Amino acid sequence: MALISASRRLRRTPFSDGVEAAGVKGYTVYNHMLLPTVFASVQEDYRHLKDHVQVWDVACERQIEVRGPDAARLMQMLTPRDLRGMLAGQCYYLPIVDETGGMLNDPVAVKLSEDRYWISIADSDLLFWVKGIAYGYRLDVLVDEPDVSPLGVQGPKADDLMARVFGEAVRKVKFFRFGHFDFQGRDMVIARSGYSKQGGFEIYVEGGDIGMPLWNALFEAGRDLGVRAGCPNLIERIEGGLLSYGNDMTRDNTPHEAGLGRFCSTQVAIGCVGRDALLRVAKEGPVKQIRPIAIHGDAVAPCDRSWPVVADGKTVGQVTSAAWSPDFGTNVAIGMVKMTHWDAGTEVVVTTPDGPRRATVQENFWI
Amino acid sequence: MALISASRRLRRTPFSDGVEAAGVKGYTVYNHMLLPTVFASVQEDYRHLKDHVQVWDVACERQIEVRGPDAARLMQMLTPRDLRGMLAGQCYYLPIVDETGGMLNDPVAVKLSEDRYWISIADSDLLFWVKGIAYGYRLDVLVDEPDVSPLGVQGPKADDLMARVFGEAVRKVKFFRFGHFDFQGRDMVIARSGYSKQGGFEIYVEGGDIGMPLWNALFEAGRDLGVRAGCPNLIERIEGGLLSYGNDMTRDNTPHEAGLGRFCSTQVAIGCVGRDALLRVAKEGPVKQIRPIAIHGDAVAPCDRSWPVVADGKTVGQVTSAAWSPDFGTNVAIGMVKMTHWDAGTEVVVTTPDGPRRATVQENFWI
Repeated sequence: MALISASRRLRRTPFSDGVEAAGVKGYTVYNHMLLPTVFASVQEDYRHLKDHVQVWDVACERQIEVRGPDAARLMQMLTPRDLRGMLAGQCYYLPIVDETGGMLNDPVAVKLSEDRYWISIADSDLLFWVKGIAYGYRLDVLVDEPDVSPLGVQGPKADDLMARVFGEAVRKVKFFRFGHFDFQGRDMVIARSGYSKQGGFEIYVEGGDIGMPLWNALFEAGRDLGVRAGCPNLIERIEGGLLSYGNDMTRDNTPHEAGLGRFCSTQVAIGCVGRDALLRVAKEGPVKQIRPIAIHGDAVAPCDRSWPVVADGKTVGQVTSAAWSPDFGTNVAIGMVKMTHWDAGTEVVVTTPDGPRRATVQENFWI
Repeated sequence: MALISASRRLRRTPFSDGVEAAGVKGYTVYNHMLLPTVFASVQEDYRHLKDHVQVWDVACERQIEVRGPDAARLMQMLTPRDLRGMLAGQCYYLPIVDETGGMLNDPVAVKLSEDRYWISIADSDLLFWVKGIAYGYRLDVLVDEPDVSPLGVQGPKADDLMARVFGEAVRKVKFFRFGHFDFQGRDMVIARSGYSKQGGFEIYVEGGDIGMPLWNALFEAGRDLGVRAGCPNLIERIEGGLLSYGNDMTRDNTPHEAGLGRFCSTQVAIGCVGRDALLRVAKEGPVKQIRPIAIHGDAVAPCDRSWPVVADGKTVGQVTSAAWSPDFGTNVAIGMVKMTHWDAGTEVVVTTPDGPRRATVQENFWI
């Protein structure tokens, strides 16, 4: 693959100096911002993530702040998930769809108070959609991108590291809840969440100036824990079935196709955009859906485009993420498969750049 | 700089196979799509662009198609530019702003017919804004991203190359106008436009399948013209004062700050979003504005973040794009400077990563 060319448009983060000092080798671009993809190697990073603790620059999970009297109304317009029970202090994973039920993003919403939310977004300018809806409906709400940059602390030793910097109370934060903690006199929202299945936290760092002091404090406190700079790991996230917007689902797909039907309470999410289309989908069910797929044989090439899934001489789906898993001794993959072939155990062929490969639809992801 | 990691999310284009075969060395990401940045070297590419003809994969200039009875009304809502005189067959450069007058994009709109437009966008998901406005106002219009990928043909020999493939009539296409031309039985919209000052065309290639046949036809026809694969060139676009959304202006800036006040007819663009804010700006004038800046001394480092512009011990602006120009023997730069220091000839200091540099605000760009 080629080099990435630097420009202001590919925004640096408050942690970029730390990332560079740690010897980042690869980047992707996510929300117009640099997101590291590899430090030692994808396989070494994977091993370390599963055994120790890593600090992740995920500042690219930009926030949309929604604030004002109509904040709750706007939030419910944005998603088919029922938000009536959402309390301040909670995080909710939200499918966000357009009027046809096509996915625009799959963020985590953070409810700061009754009239104030952060939406921690995947890779699309969801801000433009939220602002457009708020403007079109003349809602009494402020919508903006605040100076908030998430820093991930992920891995089995994440609790130990976090307790050293933020105190023992941080261990008590429950999954998809958050609390307020102090760092050098600054208030930080810390949630138990993150884009791995190894456990950990996301620190919503408010104010870029405190980014490197926090980064450095985490590395100093975690030296004997073997803390390293890391990043969302391709192998681990596929094993764990963590979907990636833009890779595994796009605006072409409904939440039901992405296997997110359980987050759609379309009957009760009154006023949500796309409700009519999703009521139809919920009634009939999707005709294709996300599945874990094991691709047999040696390690596959990087999955830089969708690979056709073929059976009985017909295309019955596509693979959109794939990587060799050292722990499971197979290529783990995420794909979307038609209902005719989506049952666990179905044998298919995946057309990779190196030729066709035998593959099997799995019952579950690999965790 | 580090490598770019491949994934489906960083979309390939219909021309990617050709780009790779031509030995692309660097990429950026633009509208979630790969955009080449360098082939031989930025300086060699620059020389060749100015002397010969290049074929550019600018598929990342994604199109938003706006179609239906309310298409014209929606288009005028999107921009403060007066569209009343826009005819089918014309291309208009459009500032697009939010309700506060902050720039969301600076696309070129292509009017295909009275009720059908393509908006050829810069790097932001403008589709989300357009869809949000259309939904909020219940407009009778279809808004989507069609399978249309622009291919640029740029350089002084562009007319000769295009005439060989599309016939002599293509020479008659006027600046920012387009015509319909045939290639292998397929209709192609071809405009005289492009992101260089060397002249040339943009071919709106409809249907990814015809991408490589057209790419190959252009290279075969242009062998003796010295045609090469190229891409928007950093040096040439700064010399020519071609702004880059995300680099030189962002949502923080009004069109007036970006020097695009001449495209804002806010008094007559009835119904455009941001009108109230822009009427205020137009009345008072901006307090900072885009300026060409010559940075003295040797070649500067890549401009991967904004560089403060300092004078009289105060920050009076920022440089957002910069490169060494072989033809002008200086570092050419684009920056935004406060009105206290924006007059041509003003001496300032630019704080680059390698230390402070003397610089001079210019009267004009370098073409």
